[in-house]
Amino acid sequence: MSQPNYKLIYFNARGRAEHIRFIFAYAGIEYQDERIPREKWPELKKRMPFGIVPVLEIDGRRVDQSNAIARYLANKYGLAGKDEWEAMQCDALVDALGDLKQVLWQLRTEQDPIKKEERKAKLMRETIPYYLSKFEKIVSENNGLSVGSGITWCDFVFAVSLENFEAIFGKSSLDYYPAMKSLKNRIYALPSIAEWVARRPHTES
Amino acid sequence: MSQPNYKLIYFNARGRAEHIRFIFAYAGIEYQDERIPREKWPELKKRMPFGIVPVLEIDGRRVDQSNAIARYLANKYGLAGKDEWEAMQCDALVDALGDLKQVLWQLRTEQDPIKKEERKAKLMRETIPYYLSKFEKIVSENNGLSVGSGITWCDFVFAVSLENFEAIFGKSSLDYYPAMKSLKNRIYALPSIAEWVARRPHTES
Ligand SMILES: N[C@@H](CCC(=O)N[C@@H](CS)C(=O)NCC(=O)O)C(=O)O
Ligand SMILES: N[C@@H](CCC(=O)N[C@@H](CS)C(=O)NCC(=O)O)C(=O)O
Repeated sequence: MSQPNYKLIYFNARGRAEHIRFIFAYAGIEYQDERIPREKWPELKKRMPFGIVPVLEIDGRRVDQSNAIARYLANKYGLAGKDEWEAMQCDALVDALGDLKQVLWQLRTEQDPIKKEERKAKLMRETIPYYLSKFEKIVSENNGLSVGSGITWCDFVFAVSLENFEAIFGKSSLDYYPAMKSLKNRIYALPSIAEWVARRPHTES
Repeated sequence: MSQPNYKLIYFNARGRAEHIRFIFAYAGIEYQDERIPREKWPELKKRMPFGIVPVLEIDGRRVDQSNAIARYLANKYGLAGKDEWEAMQCDALVDALGDLKQVLWQLRTEQDPIKKEERKAKLMRETIPYYLSKFEKIVSENNGLSVGSGITWCDFVFAVSLENFEAIFGKSSLDYYPAMKSLKNRIYALPSIAEWVARRPHTES
């Protein structure tokens, strides 16, 4: 059976598209990795379903929302757990991490410098350790993976986020979370992922 | 085949749990609708997977994240579209509405009164009409439903949000969006939903 024609549309960044690229790499699926130059965005924005990217074109039909896209591909290529229960665990963990990222983004938009420092301190002392130790416990009790006995798209979401985490907080920042650190290393050591990471465009985020 | 034992844990509110209750009502599934009194929350919070609700207990096992729970039940009870493509459309629309709600919540936490007014004006003049006209187009081109030819959990997510929208902005606020308005009315007129709405506890939000 021939594969659909896929085009992934995003900026030249990992951002909200990299876990989708990991799914394609791991599943060995061909796709066009279109990276919109910033100056072309105002014009292209109008042609996206809700004016945002990532957008996946599947045989010419456009869909948006990074996690809707990732879940669809994960289901199709065996990365959504072995049953409905595991699929739900994936979804719940991805959304828990999403809640944490939300708090991080809110910090970025805080403009009052004093409030920003307060928020940042709370994040570093409470919120991040709270989430990371929960994730750490789940992964260490689950033989180093986030869900079930095989790799899922949730592992990709974690790995990509942890790469950003290390880039922001330093290589030693994951030392307190050995299971998370080795989950990340395990994913990046998968031959298909390593091959992708070696050839992908270098970007800041 | 006997049904699992379900307990839905949330506050005495519609909030992030009501679309889950709609799924149970529509599917005719028994569940315990536990509503935590605010004063008991600090103690109970510690026993939730990530310290937040809604949480669904399935035969004693706890899962959180409202949309992970809803999607799981929707898959199980035939409310996730007729195929993977429709399931993805559901997910994408639910997340698009989630993006809009995110902007609304950010407004609530803005403390600078001038910035708050500016943001509110932008929301009313741009963001809300932008999203609502996109949704309106999708629903009106799809015979009054959000996805496919049958009711999906996405319709419940929309209906519940539109009820809140009317509560905040007034009954006539949906007049510009007739397809959305009739989607909402159609869902509330389903006998199983009407029966639930008639007997549910009255709450502000
Ligand atoms: N909930 C959406 C959010 C997508 C989103 O915020 N995309 C940003 C880039 S990461 C974007 O398109 N920004 C450009 C713009 O809004 O004009 C998703 O997960 O896909
Ligand atoms: N992303 C989560 C968010 C859940 C959430 O924010 N829950 C709130 C109530 S709507 C909560 O538990 N608040 C109490 C607390 O944080 O202590 C979901 O969709 O379930």
